[in-house]
Amino acid sequence: MTSSASDDSAGTALPFDRAEYGARLARTRAAMEAAGLDTLLVSDPSNMAWLTGYDGWSFYTHQAVIVPGDGDPVWWGRAMDARGARRTVWMDDDAIVGYEDHYVQNPDHHPMEALCGLLAERGLARGRIGVEMDNYYYSAKAHQTLAGRLDGCDLVDAEGLVNWRRAVKSPAELAFMRRAARIVQTMHGMIAEIAEPGLAKHLLVAEIMKAGTLGADGHWGDYPAIMPLTPSGMDATAPHLTWDDRPMRAGEATFFEIAGVYRRYHCPQSRTLFLGTPPQRYRDAERAVLLAVDAGIAAAEPGRTCGDMADAFFDTLEAQGFSKESRAGYSIGLSYPPDWGERTMSIRRGDPTVLQPGMTLHFMPALWLDDGGLEITEPIVITETGAQCLTQTPRGLVVK
Amino acid sequence: MTSSASDDSAGTALPFDRAEYGARLARTRAAMEAAGLDTLLVSDPSNMAWLTGYDGWSFYTHQAVIVPGDGDPVWWGRAMDARGARRTVWMDDDAIVGYEDHYVQNPDHHPMEALCGLLAERGLARGRIGVEMDNYYYSAKAHQTLAGRLDGCDLVDAEGLVNWRRAVKSPAELAFMRRAARIVQTMHGMIAEIAEPGLAKHLLVAEIMKAGTLGADGHWGDYPAIMPLTPSGMDATAPHLTWDDRPMRAGEATFFEIAGVYRRYHCPQSRTLFLGTPPQRYRDAERAVLLAVDAGIAAAEPGRTCGDMADAFFDTLEAQGFSKESRAGYSIGLSYPPDWGERTMSIRRGDPTVLQPGMTLHFMPALWLDDGGLEITEPIVITETGAQCLTQTPRGLVVK
Repeated sequence: MTSSASDDSAGTALPFDRAEYGARLARTRAAMEAAGLDTLLVSDPSNMAWLTGYDGWSFYTHQAVIVPGDGDPVWWGRAMDARGARRTVWMDDDAIVGYEDHYVQNPDHHPMEALCGLLAERGLARGRIGVEMDNYYYSAKAHQTLAGRLDGCDLVDAEGLVNWRRAVKSPAELAFMRRAARIVQTMHGMIAEIAEPGLAKHLLVAEIMKAGTLGADGHWGDYPAIMPLTPSGMDATAPHLTWDDRPMRAGEATFFEIAGVYRRYHCPQSRTLFLGTPPQRYRDAERAVLLAVDAGIAAAEPGRTCGDMADAFFDTLEAQGFSKESRAGYSIGLSYPPDWGERTMSIRRGDPTVLQPGMTLHFMPALWLDDGGLEITEPIVITETGAQCLTQTPRGLVVK
Repeated sequence: MTSSASDDSAGTALPFDRAEYGARLARTRAAMEAAGLDTLLVSDPSNMAWLTGYDGWSFYTHQAVIVPGDGDPVWWGRAMDARGARRTVWMDDDAIVGYEDHYVQNPDHHPMEALCGLLAERGLARGRIGVEMDNYYYSAKAHQTLAGRLDGCDLVDAEGLVNWRRAVKSPAELAFMRRAARIVQTMHGMIAEIAEPGLAKHLLVAEIMKAGTLGADGHWGDYPAIMPLTPSGMDATAPHLTWDDRPMRAGEATFFEIAGVYRRYHCPQSRTLFLGTPPQRYRDAERAVLLAVDAGIAAAEPGRTCGDMADAFFDTLEAQGFSKESRAGYSIGLSYPPDWGERTMSIRRGDPTVLQPGMTLHFMPALWLDDGGLEITEPIVITETGAQCLTQTPRGLVVK
């Protein structure tokens, strides 16, 4: 219904070239073969996007990418979203299949009934079929519906199979990560500039949301998979509270856990702002965290493990008289809500993942203590020789 | 670690009074009894918040509210998020239980193992236990883990049990919905004012994000459960694409599907902007939609059904020579990502839900045609006598 002749009938530009998608598919197929899978059903929107380029906020209805043993993957979802798939994926239109709208949020029907029909039609309702058992977008009911209708198939847990293939980033992906890094650095600079006692928190968050979308260095900002976490004072004893309209106060700390995002690639980073003069205990905590961060980064060499990095970090932190019960980071990259992590490796004692050049992690040494919180975190990339911080955001407490 | 004496040690203010939470729990228990449930496990963050006040971006890890047959509900989640629960829920601290961090995103452990332990400890690992089988946050693996460890219990599908209790809003909830409505109306006014040919889309979206957070009439804005959907031209043939940095163009339509949000209560509304002179076919589509909206609203009387409303809408639309394959709306209210709908009733032919005063719906008569999209939608509340629009946003195509 546009009056101008459209020059965009082929859809939006793919973020990566076809060779890169081909390489991703080949890596996925190798892992499928190692796991003895005939077919893989991918429900995680991040994995769907990584394999096909698909990008749309449609994951609130059931959808999947079907990866058969050979041939192109198939995008499957709600009929109205097949239109979005045609605008965004690299495959031909016959690899895009929509299901009818009466399956949507209707207690009498389940979309997985339609998927079973499609699998049968394409000769894929056989053998060992991988499913992402612990993904947000593969519900208990989805599994029950598939399992009840796919007679003679083996549904096998393939949670993480694609996620692990995403761990080492390509040069093109690293370029996206660096754009996202510039965005989050700009956002933290803006916060340090405008935050002040008396400023209602939502007014500050409005500027954060705006800055994240404006982007940086001529690169636009995409939406984050986690909204800004911005608690002050006692609320900052908890990690995942968002915001309200209470004013910021002198003598109080606020942490800002935010991400810059470029075309779904996330660079999260946290900084903590103290309005006024921080008490000594706060400075002690800062010192301990900075030493422990240095130790962790020094240990993050290719060939060593996430567990080695965690040991270096936790040993140093504990030697300074502080402790932390939770993991100190995770893999980052392409993501959709509700999580900007990749749900693979963790910076946690005993994690056996061997660090490799091209891996990107959010080194997240946050302390949530009984009377306040301190988050000073570093997104890093593993290089041939060690770890490099993705941003130049000044490390340390921001005091104003 | 704050230096000032905090006056907020009791946590953030509950959005509703204790009597309202008591009434919600009583309604839930009545439905549990009707379904023969001894205990209910609530995984949907919207249902968790509605029952307890809990508000945090922690739903990317497994968590739940346990509703036993009597006594207070129990918040259960990651240990670090138990801190956030202590800041936000109405129950005492002994009704808040955290699990250890090694269960988080660790292939060797699953948090549901810890939940089984808690249920046993509290004498609840028995009888019929309701679970939300098709919720995003109740994965196939979560169900498998519970089912494999709760010997002698019956896990029963209780999908929607709490969602349906939320359908009729209290006066306090309606006040929140009206605040959200003012916010979305303000956002649409801003878009109409600043959009113009040549403006890069992300610059406009940055202002939308900011306006949504600033709020309206002195009420702050919360984050939406769906990010702004803002496609132009051929991209608007698809419903759920977000944005990039391409400039808006003369002769092209863009729809803006956005929501105002006040304390998690959503008022979504879409408007379509045409830059230049709309072609006749576009005006015809607009006229058909407006007539069909009038017919739908006229049919939305208490005592009639969602299906009646759908019949009035679709019959009128089709009489005008247009058709629409998808549902024309859904129930709205308290929500968390990835969906701002309540996943209960739909405005769809045959939907038997009887409309009642206090229900709120997004009447969503969008058309996605082969050459463009048209979204002119109305959030409504059912009153004693009919349906009332929640906003005064001018209805119709915005032409500029």
